[in-house]
Amino acid sequence: MHESPFAARSGSPARPPIQFYFDFSSPYAYIASEWIDAVAARHGRTVQWQAILLGVTFQAAELKPPVAHPIKRDYALRDFERSAHFAGLPYRQPETFPIPTQNAARVFWWLHDTQGASQAVGFARAGLRAYFTRGVVLSDPAQLRALLAELGLDADAAEQAWQDQTWKQRLRGVNEAAVAAGVFGAPFFMIDGEPFWGNDRQPQIERWLARGPFTRL
Amino acid sequence: MHESPFAARSGSPARPPIQFYFDFSSPYAYIASEWIDAVAARHGRTVQWQAILLGVTFQAAELKPPVAHPIKRDYALRDFERSAHFAGLPYRQPETFPIPTQNAARVFWWLHDTQGASQAVGFARAGLRAYFTRGVVLSDPAQLRALLAELGLDADAAEQAWQDQTWKQRLRGVNEAAVAAGVFGAPFFMIDGEPFWGNDRQPQIERWLARGPFTRL
Repeated sequence: MHESPFAARSGSPARPPIQFYFDFSSPYAYIASEWIDAVAARHGRTVQWQAILLGVTFQAAELKPPVAHPIKRDYALRDFERSAHFAGLPYRQPETFPIPTQNAARVFWWLHDTQGASQAVGFARAGLRAYFTRGVVLSDPAQLRALLAELGLDADAAEQAWQDQTWKQRLRGVNEAAVAAGVFGAPFFMIDGEPFWGNDRQPQIERWLARGPFTRL
Repeated sequence: MHESPFAARSGSPARPPIQFYFDFSSPYAYIASEWIDAVAARHGRTVQWQAILLGVTFQAAELKPPVAHPIKRDYALRDFERSAHFAGLPYRQPETFPIPTQNAARVFWWLHDTQGASQAVGFARAGLRAYFTRGVVLSDPAQLRALLAELGLDADAAEQAWQDQTWKQRLRGVNEAAVAAGVFGAPFFMIDGEPFWGNDRQPQIERWLARGPFTRL
């Protein structure tokens, strides 16, 4: 793990990385993906990105995605874009939404395990941006392959990986571990054992990282 | 409507009041009730408090309260307290939770229509604080009466009001209007026709009030 200058200067022991759970089809995860690393770095922390399938966690918690409810859908679509703009980010609501993201998530774990976390994170960031600013439909094999090629990654090897039992099983294991850890949505953050759900918990996360627990629970 | 000094100084026309929808059993509405008036005043706005029944809006949107899901319940209880402390407020999770709040909501509208909005808002603030910091169970007639007496209000008249068809019908009308306006949770804010859902939208509300729309939707 990269030792942060803050931790080194203060002589404090290295603190555990932040667990950041995301789904490639979550607008709020896209927004959070753009700030989590910088926020963590400011506090001498690293981030472990975890690609999961939101559908699996929704199912485990008997929840539905926000756009499944007609009344809530209008609000959600408005809030996605408003929250992105509030964070200073571009946003264009994809016409195809939501999408199944298992192929992209398997590519993430394949990159992670064979080329390293930073390659995987680079792909994740690019994938989220492509879907939420250019409407690149990650569930469409041709569009996912084109994106991989654009990033200089081996699209053939990636497609083999997303069809391979090894990476299907790898993703399944990550999903199960996430549900077991109490994850029921995305983005979801685990920091020093404390769960934070939602892009809108950013201010609380910043305070936690700066000053530690502020709850007696 | 009270003319704000800001609006008067800038010579701008009076802007419409903020609509603030709350339920007496919502922890996030309790938190929001402690900042909404101050935030509005800083931007030359007034607030119209609207006591609603969250159950009615949940039903209309086919939603369930967050504590209805076992996996989400643990998180929600933790987040209630953490979010209150983050806002600098005391919080004690009521043992009886959630509670039916139609009596308290009817008292709110009875006070509103017979004694004025500020009396009603004073009761609302006190009721939310009593429930979420002292565990005063507002659904228990004896405890609600004791709270009313503590506030110098006529408990006998209040009890007559909450049993009266007039105030039952009044609350029903408010709920229906809220659902028709797109309200599906609490706290819920309508500002210049823009909907904001949740205590955690406070930063976006502040920016909206300061600088207007920041979304192109």
